[in-house]
Amino acid sequence: MKTLAQQVITPEDLLKHWQGHRALTRRVIESFPEKDFFEFSIGGMRPFAKLIDELLAIGAPALKGIVNREIQPYNEERAEKLIFKAQYLEKWDEATAEINQHWEKLTIEDFNETFNLFGQYEFPIIHNILYFIDNEVHHRGQGYVYLRALGITPPFFWER
Amino acid sequence: MKTLAQQVITPEDLLKHWQGHRALTRRVIESFPEKDFFEFSIGGMRPFAKLIDELLAIGAPALKGIVNREIQPYNEERAEKLIFKAQYLEKWDEATAEINQHWEKLTIEDFNETFNLFGQYEFPIIHNILYFIDNEVHHRGQGYVYLRALGITPPFFWER
Repeated sequence: MKTLAQQVITPEDLLKHWQGHRALTRRVIESFPEKDFFEFSIGGMRPFAKLIDELLAIGAPALKGIVNREIQPYNEERAEKLIFKAQYLEKWDEATAEINQHWEKLTIEDFNETFNLFGQYEFPIIHNILYFIDNEVHHRGQGYVYLRALGITPPFFWER
Repeated sequence: MKTLAQQVITPEDLLKHWQGHRALTRRVIESFPEKDFFEFSIGGMRPFAKLIDELLAIGAPALKGIVNREIQPYNEERAEKLIFKAQYLEKWDEATAEINQHWEKLTIEDFNETFNLFGQYEFPIIHNILYFIDNEVHHRGQGYVYLRALGITPPFFWER
């Protein structure tokens, strides 16, 4: 049996941590007025809907690529264009379920193996996954500023 | 010997991950014009200097509390008020070194033990530490919007 270096978080806890963040991001989406979700922006940045397009193009598809060791290019385009916030929430919930399903297929050894995500990011899988979480927290933090600028109180950061 | 559940990241890698984020946050501080660092804000939010006060009050002091199992209340006040960005950068670098020093004293068992951080947040230490990182990424993401609103291009998110 392979001896593992002593490490500090279980796969189950890391998934729970990520899905906790994803639940908060969902509440941030909900907090936006319909129009502002698609249109409001500051300093030439993308509106929150476009940031969510990015997060949707990473989460489930990236994890699927990892689990199947199948390198697909990064792709934000989709056959059907989403034009309502409710459609984004639906896609978000689908991704939640898909992430849970793919996660079950990850073995403990996988986390330290290297994978060339989207054919561009060749890192140990644990670092790809931490990047997904960090990237989501980063963009959601930007969404908090949009909400504040719109006079809307965002959800508490520590609510998951 | 206690059997550890199989886990996915080593303490060394987690420290490197955190310090990588801290190096990026330092570059975001550097990107702010002196005056805007202390004064610019959107939607009634704190200026970036105040957000950095929060991060400085967490990082090194929180880790010190954890390592010594010494419960101290959260405290952003300091004897000397910082009035220049250069002073913040100096404090930031001091915290970097302190975090490294405290980290060496963490044992692998510590991460899953519970600690009542600041007498308020009773969680496993690993979750306290992940919270420090997430909270930093969250506030730094807000700093990115401030910079964009000021017409300044922030550092690349993936540069660590």
